[in-house]
Amino acid sequence: MAGYVPGEQINDPDVVKLNTNENPYPPSPRVFEAIQSALTGDRLRKYPQPTGDDFRRAAGRVLNVDPESILIGNGSDDVLTILTRAFVPEGGLVLAPTPSYILYKSLAEIQGARFETVPFTPDWQLADRWPAGGHITFLPNPNSPSGTVVSPAAVERLAAALAPAPLVLDEAYADFADWNGLELLARVPNLIVTRTFSKSYALAGLRFGFAVAAPALVRELVKVKDSYNCDVLSLTAAAAAITDQDYFREVRAKVLATRARLTAELTGLGFEVTPSRANFLWCRRADRPVKPVYEELKRRKVLVRYMNYDGYDGLRVSVGSDAETDRLLADLRSIL
Amino acid sequence: MAGYVPGEQINDPDVVKLNTNENPYPPSPRVFEAIQSALTGDRLRKYPQPTGDDFRRAAGRVLNVDPESILIGNGSDDVLTILTRAFVPEGGLVLAPTPSYILYKSLAEIQGARFETVPFTPDWQLADRWPAGGHITFLPNPNSPSGTVVSPAAVERLAAALAPAPLVLDEAYADFADWNGLELLARVPNLIVTRTFSKSYALAGLRFGFAVAAPALVRELVKVKDSYNCDVLSLTAAAAAITDQDYFREVRAKVLATRARLTAELTGLGFEVTPSRANFLWCRRADRPVKPVYEELKRRKVLVRYMNYDGYDGLRVSVGSDAETDRLLADLRSIL
Repeated sequence: MAGYVPGEQINDPDVVKLNTNENPYPPSPRVFEAIQSALTGDRLRKYPQPTGDDFRRAAGRVLNVDPESILIGNGSDDVLTILTRAFVPEGGLVLAPTPSYILYKSLAEIQGARFETVPFTPDWQLADRWPAGGHITFLPNPNSPSGTVVSPAAVERLAAALAPAPLVLDEAYADFADWNGLELLARVPNLIVTRTFSKSYALAGLRFGFAVAAPALVRELVKVKDSYNCDVLSLTAAAAAITDQDYFREVRAKVLATRARLTAELTGLGFEVTPSRANFLWCRRADRPVKPVYEELKRRKVLVRYMNYDGYDGLRVSVGSDAETDRLLADLRSIL
Repeated sequence: MAGYVPGEQINDPDVVKLNTNENPYPPSPRVFEAIQSALTGDRLRKYPQPTGDDFRRAAGRVLNVDPESILIGNGSDDVLTILTRAFVPEGGLVLAPTPSYILYKSLAEIQGARFETVPFTPDWQLADRWPAGGHITFLPNPNSPSGTVVSPAAVERLAAALAPAPLVLDEAYADFADWNGLELLARVPNLIVTRTFSKSYALAGLRFGFAVAAPALVRELVKVKDSYNCDVLSLTAAAAAITDQDYFREVRAKVLATRARLTAELTGLGFEVTPSRANFLWCRRADRPVKPVYEELKRRKVLVRYMNYDGYDGLRVSVGSDAETDRLLADLRSIL
């Protein structure tokens, strides 16, 4: 197999990095305080909490969910891997919409499973009919690369059609959207919601994510994860980050304001920009190929993500800081 | 499936914790310096290096191996999981000696594979004959719970018998022994050596481990791991820890000195103590059951690990600090 290829991680301070949807703002100051306090005593030399119960209590309070319904993960990639291993036998079937997050295909391949995709409608809504026999279905909401969301009713309909097989609502970007799936969990028993701290909480470097699902299911999923899959610093940092909702709302508001400005500016430059509910924009052009634009931006040290789905291609541009956005726009004006 | 049950993690400062083989001494001061420097700038909000190249270069220099032969893991549990997923099909066969580390059985079960064990000889050496058809074989060296090692020649013979299937030498405790498998890698192509930073480097809380294998194999294994399986702080800390070999040798010498004292004292108290090459001791008694001893120690807030392998049982006692060792011995004298 070819393996999943993550976005380029370049450690050059001159590069404007808008290719992997990192948050342009730092994590909450409380994250740094929490890490400092965890560096005292014997926290590093001792094993961390296997199920992250302090984090689960903190997140449970903020999200208004039962702490026992939370499964901790070493990034949401780990959570998606645990779910795949728990539900999909070798030769099984993994379903996802397309164009969408390409990691799901790699997860299926590693598991020795088949992977089938169902195209979104032209306006990024769910198809009416999905293949039978899927062992797990991944639905990113908001979707990548489009940044679009489907409605609660659409999610509920799809979950009902797939039941009892699980529908995983991959909510990596849900903190930038107007609704999320936690409200559906009580009445949709085969729904699993996954979250990451890499985007809205600006902790991509620390690797932390979680799933929310029925407590009885979480108890079984715990058996599939590595015993100590999350380290003491990320657990402490994640609990501090999610507790600081004032800071979270402040960062979110800034990202949404820049998203609106960037949408308008890119549209003005002739891009077809899909209205986004995430912290990135999906941009295409009818008049010229975008791959040369990506390459010229890269030459100028502005990294965006070029995505190609069997001929359907475009640029996925992260919402950066004001300065990064200005730099991107200036370079695009010059290139175009 | 029942799931692996890790040793109890109790966060009570009054408890003397000798049940999960943590290091009684703190990590190198350089670890704390490295973490502090990684907390500046934008390291937390950006994704870490997917293959940990800075760590690979640092470890390659210290261990005198090609950096490309190193696979990073979120603890050595993650490395063992990656290896199992890469080599073992559903219905495949996982082999290990017994009595040994019970996680291997869980790894096989999660993968939907069969698990067969081969008893050690009474003096903890390898059996001459191993079942055919194993997809992967795990050999902890030093072994847990015995703390014993097998010789380089024995490892080489077993690897040859299993070839081309891989022999994984789980060297979680090799830093406390007199030899390790890195010297064999050049001439034993199906050998894979795994290491952890949880024991000799006192970083159990940070979750970091790695494998050393042929670079061509490591390139394939990278496809099976999560893209960003190690976080920026553990990568930085691990590079700092392995670079500070003076501190490492100092801690190692202290652990080995306490191991010798504890072996003599426990033997004096009537325990049959297996000579250990790890940072723990395997203790049994011919004259009385040890489970009540474990329970009474626990009541007195001294935690050791009670191990039971189908009626073959004993206490696995971590080598603690001098004060912890004194406390354990005082309580044992009182109990016995």
